[in-house]
Amino acid sequence: MPELRKDPITDRWVIIATERARRPSDFIREPLPNVSTGRFCPFCPGHETKTPPEVLAYRQGSAPNQPGWSLRVVPNKFPVLGIEGDLDRAGEGIFDRMQGVGAHEVVVETPNHLLSLTDLSEKAIEQVLWAFRDRVLDLKNDRRLRYVLLFKNQGEAAGATLEHTHSQLIALPVVPKRVQEEVDGAKAWFDFKERCVFCDLIRQETKAGARIVSESDRFVVLEPYAARFPFETWILPRQHRSHFEDIDGPTLENLSWVLKSTLRKIEKVLERPPYNFLIHTAPLQEAANPHYHWHIEIIPKLTRVAGFEWGTGFYINPTPPEESAQFLREAGLG
Amino acid sequence: MPELRKDPITDRWVIIATERARRPSDFIREPLPNVSTGRFCPFCPGHETKTPPEVLAYRQGSAPNQPGWSLRVVPNKFPVLGIEGDLDRAGEGIFDRMQGVGAHEVVVETPNHLLSLTDLSEKAIEQVLWAFRDRVLDLKNDRRLRYVLLFKNQGEAAGATLEHTHSQLIALPVVPKRVQEEVDGAKAWFDFKERCVFCDLIRQETKAGARIVSESDRFVVLEPYAARFPFETWILPRQHRSHFEDIDGPTLENLSWVLKSTLRKIEKVLERPPYNFLIHTAPLQEAANPHYHWHIEIIPKLTRVAGFEWGTGFYINPTPPEESAQFLREAGLG
Repeated sequence: MPELRKDPITDRWVIIATERARRPSDFIREPLPNVSTGRFCPFCPGHETKTPPEVLAYRQGSAPNQPGWSLRVVPNKFPVLGIEGDLDRAGEGIFDRMQGVGAHEVVVETPNHLLSLTDLSEKAIEQVLWAFRDRVLDLKNDRRLRYVLLFKNQGEAAGATLEHTHSQLIALPVVPKRVQEEVDGAKAWFDFKERCVFCDLIRQETKAGARIVSESDRFVVLEPYAARFPFETWILPRQHRSHFEDIDGPTLENLSWVLKSTLRKIEKVLERPPYNFLIHTAPLQEAANPHYHWHIEIIPKLTRVAGFEWGTGFYINPTPPEESAQFLREAGLG
Repeated sequence: MPELRKDPITDRWVIIATERARRPSDFIREPLPNVSTGRFCPFCPGHETKTPPEVLAYRQGSAPNQPGWSLRVVPNKFPVLGIEGDLDRAGEGIFDRMQGVGAHEVVVETPNHLLSLTDLSEKAIEQVLWAFRDRVLDLKNDRRLRYVLLFKNQGEAAGATLEHTHSQLIALPVVPKRVQEEVDGAKAWFDFKERCVFCDLIRQETKAGARIVSESDRFVVLEPYAARFPFETWILPRQHRSHFEDIDGPTLENLSWVLKSTLRKIEKVLERPPYNFLIHTAPLQEAANPHYHWHIEIIPKLTRVAGFEWGTGFYINPTPPEESAQFLREAGLG
């Protein structure tokens, strides 16, 4: 019998439809793009002039925009938002608009033309996470910007257009409604209970165990109760903190290990599926608060979003999270 | 310069990113499945026993679940919700759940193994619309059901799994959050202005013209100001009515013509793209109201939803609706 489940944070209901495809091999998905050896890659060393000038790089000794870097952050060559100008809020009859001011940057995670973040060492992944933090702290100084989304599109079907492993950030002049909804949901819970809903979730889930993928000193990896997608996976820090960019060194170091091992489990069980991962964090210009709790959400791209989802925001998930958690636990890999 | 735009109904902001791909031929998409002549089709006449028994059929003389029908509605063989049982609402610590009670039905639009709704005559499309109405009116008698979504997934990339042209409905025991959000947004507008926001939209847009695709006596077809997707197209009845199922005969007859001509324009301009269409209507058990206004939304599947959209609910649309409206107007076809 299928179940309806509600995410306690956003009040979002989903259907857990047990009658449908449920095993990893049941999913239709597109293969990762192969290494196209002959193709020009603008992210490989020596091609620095093919991207806009870097806004951040980790390098030893060499000059900016030259080879010798181990990680490089550059503005997206085809940005969805522009960094210059004012918002120019205006009405147009019943409509409202403003200029598309913001930032759109690419984190080239490694000089090597590798296809997956998991091909990197833990040390190199740690560097990626430091770059995320450094960029957010820098963008925070621009008071026009109210939210930064850090994300990765892995594989063509998940939206990647270049194969050299990279992540992205988009900084926005408004707090997106879906983000505000999540923050407001957490705030309402806190106002009622004087506890963080994510902290409550961690307590209940680690005790119950059925949806836990793995645990470290500092993180809990789990399949959410009301997962929207098969193998949707969350990485939650045990310590309450509303903003990702306030992370400390030891936690970031541990996250590098946890992120790599979690992605490797997913890649093993689902045979390197396309996926998206996103860092959910509190709005940029707001002070630290006791109700929101930053975390990472990983969404393997296994099913197609169709008319029903578009029409209702109601997702159909054919795999109960208890089952996907078990598959991932059994994958081993730390 | 890209723009941010806000949908006045849901307060949803989108980015109109003019720097990106914008012409129909710029989009990567998957081809429609071909007619697989040898493949068994459970929707073709003579195979009635391969589907669950019909809940509605238009036929002349022949017995139920036998050939001789011109349209047939059957329960989905792999339903995401079950029609039997109680909701059994229950808590599970911090979580809430209930049984997945509802209906999931398939409208087999024609006995002929055609691949597109536009291959049907206007008379046959009118019959599809009557079937939509008849099923909603029937399901309304089940007081457990609070919302019915009528939708179509056209093409594999839009979620279709069988090629014989068909639509679907899913009836839910809750009003989905996204639907409630739209209804609430319309209500707030009405409370403030004592006018329907959709009626206001029709007035402003028909006057402005730039986003209008076509107009008939009874309908306006337009590209919404804050379109989430390239070539997103709305069909709005001129006459205010909150519930689709309250449609009258002449309006339904005109809609058949409008829907066919609109889909033909989209198929011509975008070379038969995959698409979803959805009927947005007021919650099933609520009385007619002056603030909500039923309409159809058509979403061609041209871009990939990636990490950014999942993380923010903020959509990136590379084609300004003024340009897609012009392409569709120039397609002709009535």
